[in-house]
Amino acid sequence: MTIDVDPIASADPTALDAADPLATFRQRFRIPDASLVYLDGNSLGRPPLAAIERLARVATEEWAGELIRAWDHWLEAPRRVGDLLGAGLLGAAPDEVAICDSTTVNFYRLASAALDARPGRRIIVTDRANFPTDRYVLDGLARDRNREIAWLDPDPIDGPTVDDVAAVLAAHSGDVALVTLSHVNYRSAAIADLPAITALAHDAGSLMLWDLSHSAGSVPVGLTEHGVDLAVGCTYKYLNGGPGAPAYLFIRSDLQAELRNPIQGWFGQSGQFEMGQGFQPMPGIGGWLTGTPGVLGLAAAEEGIRVSVEAGIDAIRAKGIALTEYAIALHDAWLAPLGFALGSPREAARRGSHVSVCRSDARELTRQMIAAGVVPDFRAPDSIRLGLSPLTTSFGDVARGMAILARIAADPSAGA
Amino acid sequence: MTIDVDPIASADPTALDAADPLATFRQRFRIPDASLVYLDGNSLGRPPLAAIERLARVATEEWAGELIRAWDHWLEAPRRVGDLLGAGLLGAAPDEVAICDSTTVNFYRLASAALDARPGRRIIVTDRANFPTDRYVLDGLARDRNREIAWLDPDPIDGPTVDDVAAVLAAHSGDVALVTLSHVNYRSAAIADLPAITALAHDAGSLMLWDLSHSAGSVPVGLTEHGVDLAVGCTYKYLNGGPGAPAYLFIRSDLQAELRNPIQGWFGQSGQFEMGQGFQPMPGIGGWLTGTPGVLGLAAAEEGIRVSVEAGIDAIRAKGIALTEYAIALHDAWLAPLGFALGSPREAARRGSHVSVCRSDARELTRQMIAAGVVPDFRAPDSIRLGLSPLTTSFGDVARGMAILARIAADPSAGA
Repeated sequence: MTIDVDPIASADPTALDAADPLATFRQRFRIPDASLVYLDGNSLGRPPLAAIERLARVATEEWAGELIRAWDHWLEAPRRVGDLLGAGLLGAAPDEVAICDSTTVNFYRLASAALDARPGRRIIVTDRANFPTDRYVLDGLARDRNREIAWLDPDPIDGPTVDDVAAVLAAHSGDVALVTLSHVNYRSAAIADLPAITALAHDAGSLMLWDLSHSAGSVPVGLTEHGVDLAVGCTYKYLNGGPGAPAYLFIRSDLQAELRNPIQGWFGQSGQFEMGQGFQPMPGIGGWLTGTPGVLGLAAAEEGIRVSVEAGIDAIRAKGIALTEYAIALHDAWLAPLGFALGSPREAARRGSHVSVCRSDARELTRQMIAAGVVPDFRAPDSIRLGLSPLTTSFGDVARGMAILARIAADPSAGA
Repeated sequence: MTIDVDPIASADPTALDAADPLATFRQRFRIPDASLVYLDGNSLGRPPLAAIERLARVATEEWAGELIRAWDHWLEAPRRVGDLLGAGLLGAAPDEVAICDSTTVNFYRLASAALDARPGRRIIVTDRANFPTDRYVLDGLARDRNREIAWLDPDPIDGPTVDDVAAVLAAHSGDVALVTLSHVNYRSAAIADLPAITALAHDAGSLMLWDLSHSAGSVPVGLTEHGVDLAVGCTYKYLNGGPGAPAYLFIRSDLQAELRNPIQGWFGQSGQFEMGQGFQPMPGIGGWLTGTPGVLGLAAAEEGIRVSVEAGIDAIRAKGIALTEYAIALHDAWLAPLGFALGSPREAARRGSHVSVCRSDARELTRQMIAAGVVPDFRAPDSIRLGLSPLTTSFGDVARGMAILARIAADPSAGA
């Protein structure tokens, strides 16, 4: 193994952990096997102890004990938890965020509503490197609504730049209904310039829809500050809400009544239990709820979100930068000499909380890492994605995980 | 109180419970307060013990322990549980049912796909007494797709008859794209004639979409036998799947590739984790999945469905008839003399597993019943809906609940 002289790479991870102001948050999570190096909290976050306790309480006290009467408080949960997330982590105003459905369904609803709100315009702008479900939903909407997608094809590491977006808007001047991108790219972790791109979309008369799945709970978002129109995201990554936890949507308050929800469900109805004729959406974000919310998933998600709110997004962001800087230093010291390339931006301000390292045999290396007790994510064709979740990943995890990867990569037979 | 001479009404409920072949199933559910008379299992079913245990196991062993690796088996769950429900309770073939999303979202997707499949036809047929979320979704689809709803306005107790449907189809001959009704009405429990109405819709060249929310797990459905095209429903009523448990959809196998899913999500993609360009749905019902499924809710729903499958739909149906016959006899004996009217069909074959009893002060009576430890559901403007869930409701519950209602109704001040 290369002798390292980079001051970050040569730091003692135990000392880094000792100096970490968020270190004690790890104790708030259930970690049954401390020897497992889990570097995939950006795909599925670990369970907060409070979420496990809450689930038991909801099942035994509320579901079994209160039965139908529990809807007196369950009814408010999608908006209550939405406000907790919106105010605590997204920079949204009250009554602008609701927890409901999946990211896919919410993305469909908001993209569909945006197209309806710009009826004369034919173009949707997104990028080829966007998360698959966003692209597939847009493919379907373009087909069904007779629109076209103007695909950005940005640098795979840096993602779409402001210039990329400006160029496509200029090429389709006056014809772009919707611009939609991921705030943090799921593969490279590139942070898109949300303020500048939102402003560009507005200058072009378009609506702007951000997918925050990889940024919420890892980087500040500032929805109100930057005048964002629409956003969606999931709660099972950095927000530690549980497997397939319900997603969220954000609609800026002045757009809530202007836009039309294509899926008018009874949970969005004013006077829901009067069960009257004709859909009359309740005011505020509640009018964008659809069907009966999954109470169990929502309860777990609330506890996950609460832990992040308590830690504070600025502290989380600071640790996310420190973890990814450390991982990049170790990549440079240990992996680059073995033929790896970094698949994430080097500039901390342009990078979320995960790091991709790339080699052509990444699929097989990932398999061997998991067998050796290190869990990253493989992303085809050549990326090993290391998710560094600030509340649960230690510097020791990063050091051990990358040392094991380096050992396996140096001699693939050693890891099996 | 009237002296009763009806042989059913005068039966000893203890003896009825002793003779009930499903009586022991009540022990499979968590019932912390045996003195509570719960007559709302058709709104939220009680928790199976197995669901509570399973939730704890999913949280601690799978989420906390297996972490992301648990997706190796979670991925199959929407189809595995769909097959369990489809084969066990709906009479569907394998790979025709998936558990996913909410009833509202699934209803939107299937109704939307049905309209797309009949592009030249302008009319949607449904009824004014259909469940609100179905009506609201159709209102939105009619607006967005330039269609019209031909509303049936049937007898509020008996629901739409075959003749009602035949008449509206004749009035709009060749122009009806979709007929959609609830199999069992949420208020009166009237069973629509699914075989005959499905055949009529087909004769008219329309597609037929059934909402099974109030029938699945309480009456046999026979989707394949009767050639049904499309169906949706929830799992939190008679299926005891938990509050806001994920819903299901059924698409007859030959229609799965012909119809187009408007919401193309990554969980429906062939080779999902290749994350490639362009949506290529996986074959079978899996191609109709959308976003990431809520694993916690799905696990509880699986246990709920499993208990009903084990009991068997024929035994469940037999007990549902016996419970509702008993409730109607007690209504006639105790409530009719107090000014109540029966809000459900008298003929057992035309009635699901709940019974509505009506008086103008139903809202206040419901409040007083709940205060007295009997939980029914109020349905505006005048119905007290008594849900008699065959696996958890005893004949003793029915007798006690209706005796308390009779006492309150005879002297409203007594119940407060």
